[in-house]
Amino acid sequence: MKNETEPLEPKADKATVRRHNLSLVLRAVHDEGEATRAAVAARVGLTRAAVSSLVEQLLDGGFLTESGKTFSGQAGRPGTALRVARTGPAGLGVEVNVDYVSVCVVDLAGTDRVRLTEHLDNRDVPPGEVLARAARIAARTLVSAAEQELVPAGVRLALPGLVSGGTVRQAPNLGWNRVPAEELFAGALAALRPVPGALPTGSDNEANAAALAELWFGGRGPGAAAGSPEGGPRGGGAPEGGRAKARSFLYVSGEIGVGGAVVVDGELLRGAHGFAGEIGHVPADAEGPRCRCGSRGCLEQYAGQAALLREAGLAPDAGGPGVAELERRAAAGDARAVGALERAGRMLGLVLSGAVNLLDPDAVVLGGVYRGLMPWLGPAVDAELARRVVSGLWTPGGGRLRGASSSGDAARGAAALVVRDVIADPVGHAARTGGAAAGEGG
Amino acid sequence: MKNETEPLEPKADKATVRRHNLSLVLRAVHDEGEATRAAVAARVGLTRAAVSSLVEQLLDGGFLTESGKTFSGQAGRPGTALRVARTGPAGLGVEVNVDYVSVCVVDLAGTDRVRLTEHLDNRDVPPGEVLARAARIAARTLVSAAEQELVPAGVRLALPGLVSGGTVRQAPNLGWNRVPAEELFAGALAALRPVPGALPTGSDNEANAAALAELWFGGRGPGAAAGSPEGGPRGGGAPEGGRAKARSFLYVSGEIGVGGAVVVDGELLRGAHGFAGEIGHVPADAEGPRCRCGSRGCLEQYAGQAALLREAGLAPDAGGPGVAELERRAAAGDARAVGALERAGRMLGLVLSGAVNLLDPDAVVLGGVYRGLMPWLGPAVDAELARRVVSGLWTPGGGRLRGASSSGDAARGAAALVVRDVIADPVGHAARTGGAAAGEGG
Repeated sequence: MKNETEPLEPKADKATVRRHNLSLVLRAVHDEGEATRAAVAARVGLTRAAVSSLVEQLLDGGFLTESGKTFSGQAGRPGTALRVARTGPAGLGVEVNVDYVSVCVVDLAGTDRVRLTEHLDNRDVPPGEVLARAARIAARTLVSAAEQELVPAGVRLALPGLVSGGTVRQAPNLGWNRVPAEELFAGALAALRPVPGALPTGSDNEANAAALAELWFGGRGPGAAAGSPEGGPRGGGAPEGGRAKARSFLYVSGEIGVGGAVVVDGELLRGAHGFAGEIGHVPADAEGPRCRCGSRGCLEQYAGQAALLREAGLAPDAGGPGVAELERRAAAGDARAVGALERAGRMLGLVLSGAVNLLDPDAVVLGGVYRGLMPWLGPAVDAELARRVVSGLWTPGGGRLRGASSSGDAARGAAALVVRDVIADPVGHAARTGGAAAGEGG
Repeated sequence: MKNETEPLEPKADKATVRRHNLSLVLRAVHDEGEATRAAVAARVGLTRAAVSSLVEQLLDGGFLTESGKTFSGQAGRPGTALRVARTGPAGLGVEVNVDYVSVCVVDLAGTDRVRLTEHLDNRDVPPGEVLARAARIAARTLVSAAEQELVPAGVRLALPGLVSGGTVRQAPNLGWNRVPAEELFAGALAALRPVPGALPTGSDNEANAAALAELWFGGRGPGAAAGSPEGGPRGGGAPEGGRAKARSFLYVSGEIGVGGAVVVDGELLRGAHGFAGEIGHVPADAEGPRCRCGSRGCLEQYAGQAALLREAGLAPDAGGPGVAELERRAAAGDARAVGALERAGRMLGLVLSGAVNLLDPDAVVLGGVYRGLMPWLGPAVDAELARRVVSGLWTPGGGRLRGASSSGDAARGAAALVVRDVIADPVGHAARTGGAAAGEGG
């Protein structure tokens, strides 16, 4: 969906062009993992001389480093390899979910460098208190980040429910309505003074953030990600066990609620009001049980964590330990546990088949608690899809249904969004943080 | 979703840049309806001199005309108004549906200039025969087009079912499986020799083509469209009765089958294999009646034409006259007719609420037979949406549900796609048809 009306003789002034080209070069190195100036020039379509000048500015600004080794992977004489800096600008991602808070700091390569997760029950706690606690956790991760010479460029919250303009419009499982989450979090964090000045703050739905993490980092372990930070924004298309990485997929996240996200051609589909992806509230049965959202028979009533646990004979509010017990029982062949997972799988498959008929994605990715439950959920989901996808292109075991990668989650996706903004405009970032080196000079 | 990696110092050669800029200028005049050279220069961001040179070439090539009148709608001295030519390059659109064939010819402005529709039953007729008949109808429209000095630049088929690579993979209601529709149609048309040489042929799903027509031409009558051919590709955003035209909507077309299309930010969402939009096969009830597609309880089993007629006590295969009778009975207050429409509306609303939760569109547009049945269907659909859309942003009678415009249909959408290709590359078009004037010179 590229903009065909972009003129090829732009009237943009030189500073704007240079600012844009700095981003192009930084992104090229980011996406390649390691690249010579010649390789960057070939990739972005600028002259070698122009790229060298831009690279100098990015080295001075601390966005790039020279790795020391030379290589000749591309045409031309060998050059010094460039990579994005492992210190300096970083992204802070904060996932606030129903029964945990997880915070992570990623570097410019998107690598997870600090992680702090606390399991706790955020229901029946006032939203301001939940967000103040999240701010305290975030401040602690920033202490570790500072020791690693990582400087947060901003913070992004990943929140369950409908998120728009910094506010959680509705998060039925937290009981939140019109909670100004960004404001509450930013105020609490600023009071802790973990960094000089205020951090730019943004927010997203948690399933959206997790889907972006899956898109950018899915299909490779943390080790691989550290060595070759490919698959970042615009990286895509890397093979994964012989299979091309999906650029269009449905992501479904099983938590207390059931979240979802739609990725089309490597971009998140956000919807007209930012509320797309609410697959947990697609009706699975018109006259099914009443849902917290006010409707009836929503998928969440059959495939949410509480429904799963209840059907398996466990306490619906048993949380993470309950899910672990469910997995243990299913692995031991407990008929009730296996039956509960099969039933949830059929309902998931029913709703997903409708979504696949509507959107025709490459793949369906199941995350959250579903990931560990795939051996029992997966076949039922797959069978329902094979039965109901009208194109006939869904075959059971055909590899289009898979569990989410372990390297991606909502906190990392949120943190990576912060880093993406830095890469999209390193000059603007330097200006905001008072860094002079990557300014308009050079 | 614009491509952020497009460099601002392109290495494109001059001929490529000029070819691209010719398209920019032609598109600008097309979208504005009528514009001076100064207005075009302001819109596309090129100099006045560059635009004048490009305009000369487009006038010579027969893509633009001068309207004779001068106007000063924009800054600067008054100029002669330009508009796209009403003769010359045209698009031919051919909708082959279950019980009719409709062919139309549109000019460069997208205006419907010739239309020929034949109501006939295409079931139980071999596909080759159906497409040969469609070719004969198309050839007859081309005779009328030639009298109006319109020259087809290509033909596009709009077909029910899953269409990909020129082939109908599956059209359950026609009983077609892997029918090479483009090849069969093109062969039959070529044999009739309505124009010298072969016409470039393409194909789309009919609901996709109808959704594009709705996007480009919706919300204004044929008269308005003729006078001010705004709203063409990239035109969008024009107010319609005070309400901004939706750029993201779900389109549902009620025919023998129930077709659908998803438009996001003014672009069709086609899916990974081209099969997106199959809302007719989204399950409405897991264990409902068996569907021709092999699944159970698909929306089509409740809201397709046959189901509507059967529930109302009419013959399920009564076709267009049956739908007219249903509408007459509903208008007369016949309880069974009204009840059948309410039931279908509830099932439509049930499935649409899931789709709205997943995609968060601006609007839902009901086309095909649903258009005339809106007074009875609409309230039931709207109520179900209001009850089930999780954002709380769906209010009954809130104007986000509407019947399709009368000026858009699949044949016109298909024809407009042909014209869009001409506008995207007038030089390429001229080269293909032997027109010399819009070549590389000037």
